[in-house]
Amino acid sequence: MSSNNRIKVGVIGAGAIATHCHIPAYQALPDVEVVAVADATPGRAQEVAGKFGIARAFTDYRDLLAVDGLKVVSICSPNAFHAEQTIAALEAGINVLCEKPMAIAYDDAVRMVDTAKRTGKLLMIGMTNRFREDIQAMRQYAVDGLLGEIYYMKAGWLRRSGIPGYGSWFTNKKLSGGGSLLDIGVHFLDMALWIAGFPKPLAVTGATFAKFGPSGKALGGWGADIFRTGKQVFDVDDLATAFIRLENGAVLTLEVSWAAHVGEFGENYLRFLGTEGGMETASRFDKHYSVRYYSERHDHQYDQQLQVSAGDKNHWVEIAHFIDCVKGSAEPLVTFEQSLTVAKVLDGIYRSAELGREVAL
Amino acid sequence: MSSNNRIKVGVIGAGAIATHCHIPAYQALPDVEVVAVADATPGRAQEVAGKFGIARAFTDYRDLLAVDGLKVVSICSPNAFHAEQTIAALEAGINVLCEKPMAIAYDDAVRMVDTAKRTGKLLMIGMTNRFREDIQAMRQYAVDGLLGEIYYMKAGWLRRSGIPGYGSWFTNKKLSGGGSLLDIGVHFLDMALWIAGFPKPLAVTGATFAKFGPSGKALGGWGADIFRTGKQVFDVDDLATAFIRLENGAVLTLEVSWAAHVGEFGENYLRFLGTEGGMETASRFDKHYSVRYYSERHDHQYDQQLQVSAGDKNHWVEIAHFIDCVKGSAEPLVTFEQSLTVAKVLDGIYRSAELGREVAL
Repeated sequence: MSSNNRIKVGVIGAGAIATHCHIPAYQALPDVEVVAVADATPGRAQEVAGKFGIARAFTDYRDLLAVDGLKVVSICSPNAFHAEQTIAALEAGINVLCEKPMAIAYDDAVRMVDTAKRTGKLLMIGMTNRFREDIQAMRQYAVDGLLGEIYYMKAGWLRRSGIPGYGSWFTNKKLSGGGSLLDIGVHFLDMALWIAGFPKPLAVTGATFAKFGPSGKALGGWGADIFRTGKQVFDVDDLATAFIRLENGAVLTLEVSWAAHVGEFGENYLRFLGTEGGMETASRFDKHYSVRYYSERHDHQYDQQLQVSAGDKNHWVEIAHFIDCVKGSAEPLVTFEQSLTVAKVLDGIYRSAELGREVAL
Repeated sequence: MSSNNRIKVGVIGAGAIATHCHIPAYQALPDVEVVAVADATPGRAQEVAGKFGIARAFTDYRDLLAVDGLKVVSICSPNAFHAEQTIAALEAGINVLCEKPMAIAYDDAVRMVDTAKRTGKLLMIGMTNRFREDIQAMRQYAVDGLLGEIYYMKAGWLRRSGIPGYGSWFTNKKLSGGGSLLDIGVHFLDMALWIAGFPKPLAVTGATFAKFGPSGKALGGWGADIFRTGKQVFDVDDLATAFIRLENGAVLTLEVSWAAHVGEFGENYLRFLGTEGGMETASRFDKHYSVRYYSERHDHQYDQQLQVSAGDKNHWVEIAHFIDCVKGSAEPLVTFEQSLTVAKVLDGIYRSAELGREVAL
């Protein structure tokens, strides 16, 4: 395909998620061209543009949105800018793939969706974990009715030592809106609800803690380490736990940590208990996943195990899917309504943690 | 020791817990004699008395309480009778070891404690799991300060197929007061709170389900199987889950099932996350326990593993301890206040499940 016919993509925010995932994933597609990158840090966009052979670099994302013929932007900036930048891109007639979390406040998420609906442009939130092979399989198990009625769900990701220090915005509430819950909890909440068919959440009770971050302990490998410079800002959660009541009577419990005294390198899991069967996945990202299914046959306990690959290319699959949506050959796997529901639950967990009591959604 | 100097014990309720645990545990002690057994089912007490060489058998427990010189009774009857029988025994001047759960209603538990205080007799609830070697070790880890401030706790026992069918009173709310939560959840709630030093619970939110029991599925090995006779009564929970807020800001989550589509034969675990360390035990009853402790030393992750025996003699240790208390050489490990706290939380979980919202305690 000639350069002129390629889908022109811009990337706003040139941090690790842009350079490790979005930019290479777009560049792996033959009919896509990343034509511009923007980052508010002086020189950062230029550096990344040089490294990836991207023609144009900006410090002001509004200059990027003015690039002629731009069809898609990825929003890879700190969470606090997602809403403003997404809305500006949609208003400029550009389709948006926005990194998680959607926004730092539910009201912002609503404005994003309203703008997408009004402009008719695509907006998809980067729930990249839905594209994991085990999660796709589990969704199919549920769709196929192998679980019957799902009444109890658990989802969690407990990192032992994984506080992101990237430029420290992750741990600065003004820029991030929240800590471990918004950063990684969002994925497990979304996966659990999606696999279960997005039953409506009615109420949440939650609690958040910050027992490691304020002292600069348990720093992870993501991003730059500025904790030991004495300039650290840490006013977000490093552990969150929640109990979520769903309209169909089911309950979902969620737990997440950036840092905690747990075994090995931590753990992540999803479990679904249904009337006809149960299933779970528990894995580390550098190993194979196993999806285990439990039921009964002929009055005996009956187990299945499905081995799938580790799937470290989820962003690649997600971005290829989003480009298919832009081309009109697919519908976004992550819908407006689902993204709003997730944003509402996250907002509710933080409110509940602050109030110290259950809140209705 | 001559027969006359032995501590005379009576056992009320001659079901499985009496014949598998209490009676043999008392009989293993050289200075104790089980002199009477009572059971409301005609012929049952006589049968058990014959089997264990117990001199006297009654169908009315009040006749047992009138036996001369009785110093101790074990209450092993269905839950609904615990309060009445405990209070009657205390009023008769007899020390009481009462099986869990303490009572089917919190108000009954309060009356039991009031009576014990007024009569000056001992009352201990049979929290036999506290006597497990791994649990004793974990309590010591906490007491020694190895966890720092404990802020997040999890406790659970998920049986895959373990609905008790003993005479069916376990599954009949009028006799049991509740299902899996009262039967096995009580242990995990008690262990978690005890290890953490019994922080005061402030509020609970919970949910209960009955997805297996009503159809007679997933029957366990405990007790007689009358499910398949068509006479089954099942109006209690077979799965319960709860989120418990504690006064010190910590959270405890609890999950329990008699039956659920989980892996292998189920799982049971306790986990504690603290500022200085975390620890967990996860085990099956027929294997060794491992207590795992996680912390950090010299900027590295630091793990310990403590192997302890499976401890299937917890009732023996508990009953020897209770006899020591009766003799005045020990103080009850399970106190009035702790037992009332556990009863209050259980009561709150059922209320919350019924109301579909968090309740203050």
